[in-house]
Amino acid sequence: MASWENPVSVATFLSSNDFEKRSKADSQDTSLIDDARSRTYDAVCIPLTTSRWRDRWREMCVMSSEPDGERNESVELRAEAWRANPVFEMGEVTITSLEEAEGVIGMISDWLELDAFDNWVGHDSEIALQQELSYASYLDIQTVILPPPSNRSQIAAYGRVVNACLARTPYMQFSIRLPIYNPSIFQANSCRTPTQHESTSLHPSISSAPTTPIRSLEPRTVSSTRASEAELNATWEMWDAIRSICAYNPRLTLTLDLMPPLPSVLGVLNRWAAEPIRHLFVPASTFIANAKGYPVLPKGSQSFIRDVMKVWPYRALLHRPVVILSGTTTGLHTKGGEAAYLQYVRHLDKTSPAVIQAKTAGTVEHFARGYQDYLQAPLQPLMDNLQGITYQTFEQDPVKYQKYEEAIYAALSEPPRSDRSDKIIICVAGAGRGPLVARCLSAIARVKCNAFVYAIEKNPSAYITLQRRQASEWKENVHLLFGDMRSLSVPEPADIIVSELLGSFGDNELSPECLDGAMRFLKPNGISIPSSYSAHMAPLSSSKLYNEVRAGKDEKASETPYVVMFQAVNILSGQEDDDGGRCGPQIQECWEFEHPRRDVMLDDRGLPVTNSHNVRSAKLSFHIPHAGVLHGLAGYFEAVLYGDIGLSIHPHRKDHISKDMLSWFPLFFPLKEPLYLPSNSELQVFVWRLTNQRQVWYEWHAESFLPVLRPLAETPKAGSLPMVDGRGSFATATSTPFAPPSPLVDAIDNPFLVPGDQLFKEAAKREEEDSKIEAGVVKIGQTSLHNPGGRSSWIGL
Amino acid sequence: MASWENPVSVATFLSSNDFEKRSKADSQDTSLIDDARSRTYDAVCIPLTTSRWRDRWREMCVMSSEPDGERNESVELRAEAWRANPVFEMGEVTITSLEEAEGVIGMISDWLELDAFDNWVGHDSEIALQQELSYASYLDIQTVILPPPSNRSQIAAYGRVVNACLARTPYMQFSIRLPIYNPSIFQANSCRTPTQHESTSLHPSISSAPTTPIRSLEPRTVSSTRASEAELNATWEMWDAIRSICAYNPRLTLTLDLMPPLPSVLGVLNRWAAEPIRHLFVPASTFIANAKGYPVLPKGSQSFIRDVMKVWPYRALLHRPVVILSGTTTGLHTKGGEAAYLQYVRHLDKTSPAVIQAKTAGTVEHFARGYQDYLQAPLQPLMDNLQGITYQTFEQDPVKYQKYEEAIYAALSEPPRSDRSDKIIICVAGAGRGPLVARCLSAIARVKCNAFVYAIEKNPSAYITLQRRQASEWKENVHLLFGDMRSLSVPEPADIIVSELLGSFGDNELSPECLDGAMRFLKPNGISIPSSYSAHMAPLSSSKLYNEVRAGKDEKASETPYVVMFQAVNILSGQEDDDGGRCGPQIQECWEFEHPRRDVMLDDRGLPVTNSHNVRSAKLSFHIPHAGVLHGLAGYFEAVLYGDIGLSIHPHRKDHISKDMLSWFPLFFPLKEPLYLPSNSELQVFVWRLTNQRQVWYEWHAESFLPVLRPLAETPKAGSLPMVDGRGSFATATSTPFAPPSPLVDAIDNPFLVPGDQLFKEAAKREEEDSKIEAGVVKIGQTSLHNPGGRSSWIGL
Repeated sequence: MASWENPVSVATFLSSNDFEKRSKADSQDTSLIDDARSRTYDAVCIPLTTSRWRDRWREMCVMSSEPDGERNESVELRAEAWRANPVFEMGEVTITSLEEAEGVIGMISDWLELDAFDNWVGHDSEIALQQELSYASYLDIQTVILPPPSNRSQIAAYGRVVNACLARTPYMQFSIRLPIYNPSIFQANSCRTPTQHESTSLHPSISSAPTTPIRSLEPRTVSSTRASEAELNATWEMWDAIRSICAYNPRLTLTLDLMPPLPSVLGVLNRWAAEPIRHLFVPASTFIANAKGYPVLPKGSQSFIRDVMKVWPYRALLHRPVVILSGTTTGLHTKGGEAAYLQYVRHLDKTSPAVIQAKTAGTVEHFARGYQDYLQAPLQPLMDNLQGITYQTFEQDPVKYQKYEEAIYAALSEPPRSDRSDKIIICVAGAGRGPLVARCLSAIARVKCNAFVYAIEKNPSAYITLQRRQASEWKENVHLLFGDMRSLSVPEPADIIVSELLGSFGDNELSPECLDGAMRFLKPNGISIPSSYSAHMAPLSSSKLYNEVRAGKDEKASETPYVVMFQAVNILSGQEDDDGGRCGPQIQECWEFEHPRRDVMLDDRGLPVTNSHNVRSAKLSFHIPHAGVLHGLAGYFEAVLYGDIGLSIHPHRKDHISKDMLSWFPLFFPLKEPLYLPSNSELQVFVWRLTNQRQVWYEWHAESFLPVLRPLAETPKAGSLPMVDGRGSFATATSTPFAPPSPLVDAIDNPFLVPGDQLFKEAAKREEEDSKIEAGVVKIGQTSLHNPGGRSSWIGL
Repeated sequence: MASWENPVSVATFLSSNDFEKRSKADSQDTSLIDDARSRTYDAVCIPLTTSRWRDRWREMCVMSSEPDGERNESVELRAEAWRANPVFEMGEVTITSLEEAEGVIGMISDWLELDAFDNWVGHDSEIALQQELSYASYLDIQTVILPPPSNRSQIAAYGRVVNACLARTPYMQFSIRLPIYNPSIFQANSCRTPTQHESTSLHPSISSAPTTPIRSLEPRTVSSTRASEAELNATWEMWDAIRSICAYNPRLTLTLDLMPPLPSVLGVLNRWAAEPIRHLFVPASTFIANAKGYPVLPKGSQSFIRDVMKVWPYRALLHRPVVILSGTTTGLHTKGGEAAYLQYVRHLDKTSPAVIQAKTAGTVEHFARGYQDYLQAPLQPLMDNLQGITYQTFEQDPVKYQKYEEAIYAALSEPPRSDRSDKIIICVAGAGRGPLVARCLSAIARVKCNAFVYAIEKNPSAYITLQRRQASEWKENVHLLFGDMRSLSVPEPADIIVSELLGSFGDNELSPECLDGAMRFLKPNGISIPSSYSAHMAPLSSSKLYNEVRAGKDEKASETPYVVMFQAVNILSGQEDDDGGRCGPQIQECWEFEHPRRDVMLDDRGLPVTNSHNVRSAKLSFHIPHAGVLHGLAGYFEAVLYGDIGLSIHPHRKDHISKDMLSWFPLFFPLKEPLYLPSNSELQVFVWRLTNQRQVWYEWHAESFLPVLRPLAETPKAGSLPMVDGRGSFATATSTPFAPPSPLVDAIDNPFLVPGDQLFKEAAKREEEDSKIEAGVVKIGQTSLHNPGGRSSWIGL
């Protein structure tokens, strides 16, 4: 298995031509594969069949292009015999022994037309594919690459065949070759000539329509390099349709064909990072010559390859992509020969910033190795007592406790506290094994003030550690208190309460409820560190995380949030200004908690009467610039410890606020069913923090909208506007159709409305306006409500 | 339970005013309910709380509108105490005993704002709702009506609360009151004044936004009666969002408020027939006066009520809707008094064409009583031997066998056969208990030709019946053959093969495969009756069928087609001309089978070498004029028996081709997950008939598309058009965004493209064109692939 230590795997593609040339010169085909291996390639990718098989299949199954193509009974009988019992003949396959096949990536005949417009060609292509897969399976080939789909409008046919083959051929990995966009779109105005691929079935009873091939593996010159968003969308959309039809089968992956030149701004290409790319197919023609004539990749291809290679190989089935080079022996570039391509790709990998970062101690990337896209249940430190090892892990954070010390130092240095000679009482609420106690003592020492520390802890095991540290380190500067901060009695009120109860989403480890209980022993003008924290969300696409959540086969698994170090994900939302400011920013704040909160009604013990004040809800509007599939929501937090000292895992701000902090990975709120979002759509996300007497939980839900054309008269009328909310988001309007004026217009059944009447005239005028068209918005989908009633995940109070 | 025999149930609504007036005059409130019952109403609908409760709740939870609304600690403490332990005081509820409550439909306080923009008002409304539901549950009230949602943009909040209450209150039926459209939209340009409903929480920390009430139950005059499609869509869309959030809970139903005047053309209103309507709320103000001054309903309301009342009560939970009359004692109409409204509604029901039809013997409606929306597994007569009772049921069809006799008569009368003196051989392939044999003999007698009948049957039990009939009726005119028509040897070749092997979808009982086997003994110029048959489909919405399929809790239940007599359904597709002919008609043909088929390769037994020629696939494009939810596909068949004599269950043609034929209900292909389709969208349906050596099965899948705006330059270029299919459907284009020109435009990384170059100029020109906008289409969703590999339903060969 590939890993950071084992650098990028590179394979070479041997074409049928290579085999045919060699078999003429030398009967020992095996040496061709051995030869390639000896040139230090990690793997070899070869077509499984020869042109002899292609010729026989076409003779049987495809109508010849001559107009005199009369029905030939003997050919038709041969075809039926083949359909009944598909079999190869010698010379129709490239490999015949297990030894040759070992470690080979098999390329399925690329002339098969699984999505042909001609039903018979499609049918016979499916039989031929099954035949080839059976043979690959016999040879114990682990991975095959399927030819790309040709027709967007036939994508369901392609997907259905792949799905059937996945079911019929267990264990084998299927990888679909797909150009990163469709270069045939560039052949504008070039006279289109029929190709061999436009097949018509021999079968006379079914007519056929032409197909357009996008599958050439040969080097070619592209006549223009302009790829619009639509063109870049098209191939992803095909991939998405196929894998959705195949129900996200984990054995189905992508072989991205990088032949078309790439733009240097990633933008719309980010989506590929969230998809299971198993191979990158890089023909020699993709390389350009550097000043010295050696082959190098254009900047766009460089950064794209580095980006998709970041995927961490933590599971056997999720390798880093293998780079497959083709055409490297054709001498397309003047310098360096075949070896130059291979060396260049290895160099590209070795010098990738992501690889370098992961090898550097102290970075989040280094710390998180092995945790990427791994689902962890969030901690419940209030209900469960943490283990020593958990404390130890989090105490290693080089940033978090330093920020705490700075915050305590700043709080102690503020005039009202630093001026007076009274003793300052600090209370650490939830001391754990004592890291915050130690930081309090350092801060006190730095400020040189008269301060005393109480340390409260409810975990009896951690309390032993605290007692040991008090006896050996802290002595009389610290007073330990054992118990729950919500009920424990504290000897004297505190000036400062310091706590570290935050979860990845801020309040998800019940910090609000715990600190509510601690406010009893805070002085009226006392302060809390942290003083506030907020929860943030962004819409996320990740087929990997979607499959990880489903892997447990427990239906409730998709109704609970997870702690995840995101890797193969894509945030679907765009920046605020992408859509003229209708929606919010890429990552949006859900809500905030402040401490101390002065407006809560307390009972005679000083505790809140109900937990209603900790209920929250948020409605967020995201603009989705590029089509994608929503698999869940990313959750982040940001906290103000004191003044301008904070902690943050908000992707845009964390480096500014608390760079290299390791303690929190984001939260992932999964969806039961993926939600398809077209380009330029709007996503409305609803999230609630709910509570009853004993529990706290989150529920979440989303609706999607799209701008459309509609008759002008269906605009909500001025003065009525019942659907406008505070944000002015367009999705608050009702759904309206783009359709000819409704037949209802002529069918008013109102006995009170008569011609000549003022209302009648108004109605007639409105009808006139119906002929005008303007832009509106319609709802296009919604998700389930997730985790209703805290069904899958409540947090015990 | 209501039924056709028990006519429509009518309830009366007693308002809080009624209770308050009465309680001032007379302390015995009970008599009010008893009074209503004595006036021959079937049920009574009353609000559960009084204005005293409303006043106390508002005092606790809603900020007074005075600007000096300072925070009042004692009120706030009372509110917190109530939140902790919600309780009513005497005089705050209308009913206090089980006896009073018996059979009552409870109306939940209609001033609750579950979807308030103010989070606190929403939160406290939820607590109040729970409190009211607990009390209703204590009183053993079976059904409650919830106040309507007020704000489209807050619909998720409303839905979440309803879902939580459904979970918390088992057994109770929840019905959501919803005006058929939102009349507030009609108050155009009227100066909008704040109402009591615009509540702001007492809680000072959270700001609020205004809400618009649509919940008035009082009679009112509507200022205009124009309802656009958008307005008619809006309430349905709210209902759909709520029930989707509530996961189609079968205890959640609708109370449609018919106060707004209805258009007389149903069109967009058809969708309600597919929804679970439990009550129709009809205020006296909806009635108009007839010439004599008596209250009658406008034509639109009449036909709508009759339409939704058609729903058949075959399950305890699925009653016919109850009509709730309100305001009938206010003397709004001069003649007839209160009784006139009740009498009118009963008259409307009794004279409904649907009711009359269901009572008339010989109609499909009469025959199908009790089968509406009932899911049946399709017959598999090839694999299973049918029971006598099944034969008997189908032999009752008054039309089918008459059509067969006409077809046989016509075939015998045609010159090549009627002219010659040779004996004509007719073979009944699959004779069952003999109905076709008898029809053959009648036809022979009518034509007076020299003909002989062979009758083949493979069901050994039915073969006994055949032997009995031969001995007693047919004698030497008929020769019986026992065995499978695909392998049996027949003494002499037939001129005519007659079969009745058709299923609801035509080929779904393996007629093609069976007749392939029978063609061995058909003369070269022989004919088959039927000579051809075709399968047809339409997209269907039906929350009832969706829930019926899910009720089995077997995941595979949604991957098998069912035979269903459709009732509470709505065909979502529009007519061909609705969208300028881009899509096909409302119901579309999938494929056809013809017999005899001359082009099939046969083996030496005369049987097809493979079954490949019976594989079929279809791609259909439907225009969806009005927003709806796709729950499945309706399947129909049409057959040509001979010449212009046929059988059809195609909804548009059955009455023309074979009126009153009873033998086939349509087929229903369900979806695992509902697919939301906006107004003016396009649905592409893919359906396959697949086969292997032993089995035949169907797979199905759908994709949805919507027209949008997009930059002009992203139109597919002339000459490339890789995505156009034969139908010219717009959905074959790639998805494109409506967005500012992509940033990629400026980021081309192409070493070969230099200024001055012709290609460079062309690219620059294209950028210019990007600023123009035109209409395009984007994909918006897709379903799963259903029944892949015949997982849930194959038909054994």
